[in-house]
Amino acid sequence: MSDGAALEFWFEFASTYSYIAAMQVEERCRSAGVRLVWKPFLLGPIFGLQGWNTSHFNLNPRRGEYMWRDLERLTTKFGYPWRRPSEFPRNSTTAARVACAIAGESWCGDYVRRVYVANFGENRPIDRREVVAEILAELGQDALAILDRAESPAFRPRLRENTDRAIALGIFGAPNFVVGEELFWGEETLDDAVAWALHAPGDAADRP
Amino acid sequence: MSDGAALEFWFEFASTYSYIAAMQVEERCRSAGVRLVWKPFLLGPIFGLQGWNTSHFNLNPRRGEYMWRDLERLTTKFGYPWRRPSEFPRNSTTAARVACAIAGESWCGDYVRRVYVANFGENRPIDRREVVAEILAELGQDALAILDRAESPAFRPRLRENTDRAIALGIFGAPNFVVGEELFWGEETLDDAVAWALHAPGDAADRP
Repeated sequence: MSDGAALEFWFEFASTYSYIAAMQVEERCRSAGVRLVWKPFLLGPIFGLQGWNTSHFNLNPRRGEYMWRDLERLTTKFGYPWRRPSEFPRNSTTAARVACAIAGESWCGDYVRRVYVANFGENRPIDRREVVAEILAELGQDALAILDRAESPAFRPRLRENTDRAIALGIFGAPNFVVGEELFWGEETLDDAVAWALHAPGDAADRP
Repeated sequence: MSDGAALEFWFEFASTYSYIAAMQVEERCRSAGVRLVWKPFLLGPIFGLQGWNTSHFNLNPRRGEYMWRDLERLTTKFGYPWRRPSEFPRNSTTAARVACAIAGESWCGDYVRRVYVANFGENRPIDRREVVAEILAELGQDALAILDRAESPAFRPRLRENTDRAIALGIFGAPNFVVGEELFWGEETLDDAVAWALHAPGDAADRP
């Protein structure tokens, strides 16, 4: 790990461009020696602040059509599974609560990528608790124990806390990379965010 | 020049991210051997279709604040002049009509870059005819003759025609790179668009 600051990955499981970022962020941080922190949050309350009741990709059809074509191109370019989901955006509350509960586990990245592939590569309804349980089981985890933990008083509030923090950071979409207070939005900013983390002064807590 | 298709650069002089793209597109196409076509258009009528009466950066302050910080970072990264304009967006009709009239000239790229630097590097009111004339004079051109040509019946309709074509192409913002009917939006897509142009079949008209 470098002496630089950590890179926080702020993601929403319903977000198409977050899928691209989620597939890349852990490997990119590892190879750069930057510490990665998983930060699931919900876009719904943030879109609400902006006066929207759904994704802007649905509110602006011209913008939405481009996004679907762009995702097709990007997933082809990077070799990621792609199937346009039959429902968009899918409610990600349960999947994101689980991510909050396991954010410190070594297999969090595997879980995050698996949920994204389910949503955007396999068109599985990740908004359903049983689908999240299936994904956890596929990863060899005790699904019901983890779902219970995710919904326990100790962990359940974390998603709301993350979302409040996202609002305070000025986040307006997803994905985002945050280094200290510096916000980078969009999957294409990953390299710039990693470079920023390498050159930013580390937190005292990161130092040996 | 490659046998591939031409790359069209669809830009709006009021658009901040188009500034970044405008500084890069000619050199990138030249080094890749891709033929570049300048396509000035107006975003105003397109924003109108989307129900907006100004830039979405003004309508959504959270998004807008990020854009200004992002532009500061990007211009620093690339070493381009930057001064946050005191008026945004500036009406670009006159500057864009001139670009339509000189789109086939060898110095069109110099003009385009000079207008962007004036708007976003020097905070000059490029919405004023006399400022466009100054820029033309700085480039050693006969400013009044070119302004007259830009507003003549032969050239004046071109900006409206370009904007109508942009609408037909599904354009919803700027900058854009278009290869055939394939649309790439955002300055960060330039490399993908150039790669697309190199691999796309050329128009018959491009062939020797």
